[in-house]
Amino acid sequence: MAIDDVQGPSAQELLSLPHLAPLVPMLYVAWTDGELTPEEIRALGAAARSQHWLDLRSTAVLANWLDPLNPPSPSALAQVGEHIRRTAERLSRSDQKSLVELGAHLAEAIGGKDALPAPMPELARSLAPVETALGVSGAEAVRTLVAVPKLHAVKPPEPHSFSVEALRAVLERTYSAERASVREWLADPAFRYVDERDTAAYRAQVLAWLKQLAARGLGQFAYPGNLEKVDLGRFIAAFETLAFFDLSLVVKAGVHFGLFGGSIYFLGTERHHREYLPRVASVELPGCFAMSELGHGSNVRDVETLARYDAERGEFVVHTPSESARKEWIGNAAQHARVATVFAQLEVKGERHGVHALLVPLRDEEGRLLPGVRVEDCGLKMGLNGVDNGRLWFDGVRVPRENLLDRFSRVSPEGEYSSAIPGVSKRFFTMLGTLVAGRVSVACAALSAAKSGLSIAISYGDERRQFGPAGAQEVRLLDYQAHQLRLLRPLATTYALDFALKHLVKRYVGRTEEDALQVEALAAGLKAYASRHTTHTLQVAREACGGQGYLVANRLPSLKADTDVFATFEGDNTVLLQLVAKSLLTGYRQQFEDDRVFTVMRLIVDRASGALGDRNPFSVRRTGSEHLRDGDFQLRALRFRESDLLASAARRLRERLSSGVDSFEAFNQCQDHLLALALAHVERVVLEQFLLGVAEVEDPALKSVLGRLCDVYGLGCLQDASGWFLENDHLEGAKAKAIRKEVTRLCAELRPDAVALTKAFGIPGTCLAAPIALGRPSP
Amino acid sequence: MAIDDVQGPSAQELLSLPHLAPLVPMLYVAWTDGELTPEEIRALGAAARSQHWLDLRSTAVLANWLDPLNPPSPSALAQVGEHIRRTAERLSRSDQKSLVELGAHLAEAIGGKDALPAPMPELARSLAPVETALGVSGAEAVRTLVAVPKLHAVKPPEPHSFSVEALRAVLERTYSAERASVREWLADPAFRYVDERDTAAYRAQVLAWLKQLAARGLGQFAYPGNLEKVDLGRFIAAFETLAFFDLSLVVKAGVHFGLFGGSIYFLGTERHHREYLPRVASVELPGCFAMSELGHGSNVRDVETLARYDAERGEFVVHTPSESARKEWIGNAAQHARVATVFAQLEVKGERHGVHALLVPLRDEEGRLLPGVRVEDCGLKMGLNGVDNGRLWFDGVRVPRENLLDRFSRVSPEGEYSSAIPGVSKRFFTMLGTLVAGRVSVACAALSAAKSGLSIAISYGDERRQFGPAGAQEVRLLDYQAHQLRLLRPLATTYALDFALKHLVKRYVGRTEEDALQVEALAAGLKAYASRHTTHTLQVAREACGGQGYLVANRLPSLKADTDVFATFEGDNTVLLQLVAKSLLTGYRQQFEDDRVFTVMRLIVDRASGALGDRNPFSVRRTGSEHLRDGDFQLRALRFRESDLLASAARRLRERLSSGVDSFEAFNQCQDHLLALALAHVERVVLEQFLLGVAEVEDPALKSVLGRLCDVYGLGCLQDASGWFLENDHLEGAKAKAIRKEVTRLCAELRPDAVALTKAFGIPGTCLAAPIALGRPSP
Repeated sequence: MAIDDVQGPSAQELLSLPHLAPLVPMLYVAWTDGELTPEEIRALGAAARSQHWLDLRSTAVLANWLDPLNPPSPSALAQVGEHIRRTAERLSRSDQKSLVELGAHLAEAIGGKDALPAPMPELARSLAPVETALGVSGAEAVRTLVAVPKLHAVKPPEPHSFSVEALRAVLERTYSAERASVREWLADPAFRYVDERDTAAYRAQVLAWLKQLAARGLGQFAYPGNLEKVDLGRFIAAFETLAFFDLSLVVKAGVHFGLFGGSIYFLGTERHHREYLPRVASVELPGCFAMSELGHGSNVRDVETLARYDAERGEFVVHTPSESARKEWIGNAAQHARVATVFAQLEVKGERHGVHALLVPLRDEEGRLLPGVRVEDCGLKMGLNGVDNGRLWFDGVRVPRENLLDRFSRVSPEGEYSSAIPGVSKRFFTMLGTLVAGRVSVACAALSAAKSGLSIAISYGDERRQFGPAGAQEVRLLDYQAHQLRLLRPLATTYALDFALKHLVKRYVGRTEEDALQVEALAAGLKAYASRHTTHTLQVAREACGGQGYLVANRLPSLKADTDVFATFEGDNTVLLQLVAKSLLTGYRQQFEDDRVFTVMRLIVDRASGALGDRNPFSVRRTGSEHLRDGDFQLRALRFRESDLLASAARRLRERLSSGVDSFEAFNQCQDHLLALALAHVERVVLEQFLLGVAEVEDPALKSVLGRLCDVYGLGCLQDASGWFLENDHLEGAKAKAIRKEVTRLCAELRPDAVALTKAFGIPGTCLAAPIALGRPSP
Repeated sequence: MAIDDVQGPSAQELLSLPHLAPLVPMLYVAWTDGELTPEEIRALGAAARSQHWLDLRSTAVLANWLDPLNPPSPSALAQVGEHIRRTAERLSRSDQKSLVELGAHLAEAIGGKDALPAPMPELARSLAPVETALGVSGAEAVRTLVAVPKLHAVKPPEPHSFSVEALRAVLERTYSAERASVREWLADPAFRYVDERDTAAYRAQVLAWLKQLAARGLGQFAYPGNLEKVDLGRFIAAFETLAFFDLSLVVKAGVHFGLFGGSIYFLGTERHHREYLPRVASVELPGCFAMSELGHGSNVRDVETLARYDAERGEFVVHTPSESARKEWIGNAAQHARVATVFAQLEVKGERHGVHALLVPLRDEEGRLLPGVRVEDCGLKMGLNGVDNGRLWFDGVRVPRENLLDRFSRVSPEGEYSSAIPGVSKRFFTMLGTLVAGRVSVACAALSAAKSGLSIAISYGDERRQFGPAGAQEVRLLDYQAHQLRLLRPLATTYALDFALKHLVKRYVGRTEEDALQVEALAAGLKAYASRHTTHTLQVAREACGGQGYLVANRLPSLKADTDVFATFEGDNTVLLQLVAKSLLTGYRQQFEDDRVFTVMRLIVDRASGALGDRNPFSVRRTGSEHLRDGDFQLRALRFRESDLLASAARRLRERLSSGVDSFEAFNQCQDHLLALALAHVERVVLEQFLLGVAEVEDPALKSVLGRLCDVYGLGCLQDASGWFLENDHLEGAKAKAIRKEVTRLCAELRPDAVALTKAFGIPGTCLAAPIALGRPSP
């Protein structure tokens, strides 16, 4: 069928006439550069029509294409642009010296060497006035023209303001060797995504991957032969990098190396280390971490599973006394784990000593369940179906006395219980410390997933065009203000969190007995904040990619589904944020319900009220860009909010407690307030760390782009909480408006750097995988 | 293994001794009602131990259970409560007259009739002092005791303040027959959820369901035999009810009946109606709606597919000229559709007339593709995998002239084009009107999904306990302040939207040429708002159910995955909200880029500035509960925000346009502002409709509970936008704080009604399906 005999500015027609071909690049530039007035287009038309070699048909079509009252449609222009770029791709650089030269090649593409309407030198001479009328010429014009990317065309690099490699070096400044190793491992073709719907095959693949990673040394990062050299920061960095790939693998690695291995490392003694850790590192002995129970998800202190010591036989008897005591959601338990670290109420000589951990074998070497152990599969989940989550019941399962992880508490053969830590409660919290590494790791993995989602959505937004000014090419999504705000604000938060999490890892690795509780609170707060950020970011990213974002091939569906539970596991976010608030209120003391609470809170109220005295009425009104982009100003504001919320929370609690409300109820009446306090604290810490990080960067280009991101983050926090700041007279209305405008302006300034900022994450293309992020045609 | 020889307050031990059984209910009440002092517990112990029929072992255990210094653990108490309730379930009401009587039955449950330590009358007499010491007695005490629900126990109805049936009647006041029919159809065992992972089987099942629904009359709701009687409200109500069940089925029904059938109904003429609609209604002729193209998702005006009229043969030639012109995301296209309504640029005698729709057969009766038609499957999606989305290419496909849907434009056999509507642009927008029904339906279906999610999460939050005051039973999640806020605020918005959407349906059904554009804007705004609300609500619901929410069996994963694309299809939410803003700016005129724009905007600026004159400085400061709970106050505030944003947007646009910025760029520079305006408009409309709805209700109990929900919605809007109101001096700080407190207080007041409010949605248990919502043990 012929569809090329269309009147009006038809792309097909234009591209079918060899006589017009030399003019095509100029016509395209005329309509797309957006600078030409109707008068100039008419002048161009006159110059073009005067070419003596044009036949009648070509002249008519040309007139049609240069009628300022009847501009070509965006799609016609897009077809022409696509045609030009496809031809140009086949040319060497030297063939792209001018628009005329490019046009000559277009003519050849249509009709072969003889299709040129005149010899090249003559053509060039005769078209010179047209180029002049157009106001552009030469190799630069060609480059610009050819560089205009189109939907799904291979995208040339955007001009950006900094070196991607230099920024990547900043992001990877710690544990760079471990990060590099994981990237190298993932380059192996074995690490390709598999069909997630076939649960059995997926689980088997994930286990195989895990063993492969162990063989290459992942386990050694966590538990090196010489345990003196343990630095969990190495494992966490590897884990963070691994999280650019399949998240079931990441969670399985976290369960096995982090939780199971970690429980042995932290709660066990030399004997356990020697016997188990090498086999943990090699995944010869897959394990699981059986803490949560159906009826006691977050409230671990009330787990019901019982471990009673039988002194006659020198064994512990592990038992599940009720249905609500079944171990629930245990990763690696449904199929692969051979041993479980089981958390149970320890009972020796009829006396309860609180929750303790002990190693309970589940399966023999052939994977057959041992007597007394019952396992059920948790069934299909929203995501992470490569992890075999299961439920566990123990029916009087006997394990040797040595299986008690006895770093903090021992039971002698005769049944004498002794502990280095007096008090059930203190022991319990000391033991919970094992969970901190898990929270740090989850926060880091969540951030990697957010990085993947942003890379996909920003790359798509940079290519995809939709709507536009009348008669011109459609506009890229990322050139829309709303699109910039919705993607670049999360991008700024992602960078902010990158600095904050590196700070967390450093504090975690270097923690001492003195600051351990502070580090725990920091880990809890950042885990909650990072996972919430990831859920939000991936939702935005999915929606920003429209229908393409809904296709499994473009990876956003699994990123979303896999990370959704990050808000829940390793501590429910709401519970964790309350832990942060309580830590702040008690000066990082473990328990709130004790006598010191009044003293502590009075102190806080007094101290905070003092700190609030220094409000600066002038600063409340300043709206200048320089002032707004001052990190000190932003940080002062966030500090003010944190102190104020802390003081008012303490005041409200004290009022209730002194009027006889019990502490549980008092907390519940202030719960919303406490959650706001925790969030305010975390945001202050994140901004602080981002500012410190930017201050350490020396490269001026990096400093500038990171500074902008930092301003977006800091001002964004103020913008989101503007209600609170206005309410408390810390901002005036005009300033709140100015902050909103400044954030919008900063996002526009960051726009040209957006893609490069995601490239600096260094996510391997095979991990990113989404066709829409890689400039490949949609699947 | 024996685990019942535990010292201390062990539930197993207590429940194993028949002599103690008569005392068990009293012991349980003593520890759980939370009112007894240690002294009272000691008194109770003394009274209990004086019972002459107690043996030594029983006395010892009793002492253990009534030691105020060693309270039983929450889980031990929970076990006891569970045991009592399980026994009580088997008793008639008359056997539950007192705690002693209940206790006697517990004794029988352990040791049979003879297990009673003394004859019943003697027992009752001798235990009277114990009941007195306890301070509670009689049937009421038993009822309270038995009514305490436990994790996964079958839940007795909560005491709530209104009649669920009466509220349900309010929610179903329109088209109740259609809603009842769909519920009845869904009760057929054929409508049970299937495994979504087997795409082929799932698609086949969805098609079979669709045909079954058609056989029962669903298609007749849309296109009754007598087309004079068409009332699409009937179909939309059925669709909304259907959306309590599988959402792939809902979307497939929407594509086939709504989009495909609707295009024939709205764009075709009597001939098409006669020929096609009966076969649409019966699903004998499955169809699809081929509008979107890969390169033109939202920008339909620029679709490239061409329909050229060939006068010689009296046929249209339908052609896909480029890759970006492929029809993308077309539901029902990959496998089942036999005909497509194709949107293409109409070309007659070489002249283009803009986008038109025509019917193009895709497959023969055996489902084989027809010549020239190419189809590709879109592949796996995040959700809705029961719908066969596909891509379409046409290679010179010929269809008879009669296949043009020619209600608005005709082509004579000789190739004369004529249209009742002058101007390509106006024709285009008239045609787009067919999409409005789709948007109304999507908004309604989205709300149904939110209702399902809230029903699951609120039911779980009402049963699930976690943490609690020391020594007492753990607290239900829904008794936590933060949990109330996160679930009951969306519940209030859901009710608000229910009223607003009924208003939308009514306006849609009764629309005239005069208000059609206003209805379109309303549909666009409410579709965007409702789908965003659903995405937010389901996320909150998932997180509120913790790990249980992550299990596929509990349905939240599919609800989330299936509805995620609601933000994208039937119009991207961002695009739709801009449409709303533009409609407001131009007084619902179709196009912005015309000469009237200055005049219109000047009018708006002037009018709005006038309206803003009547600020009431007193009201800005009032913080009383009565004032805050005054719908008039809330509505005035939302109206103020809408007018102010409209005026300032118009002002900003006018400034830019008059300084020479082109209209596209001017809009882009104000995009964020325009989106805020659209949202403010929608929220005002929703509150208005909710207030009107509540005003019409007469039952005082309903009026009261709906009034509270309405206050939560209205004040919640103010709370979320407090930054804006403070910035614009419409609120003072103290008032903003008072609003926050009032919302918290309202949610606490609504707490006892929460479950009943979800029951009033009338979602069949088989549709809800989630074990955690039905009091069934977790899967």
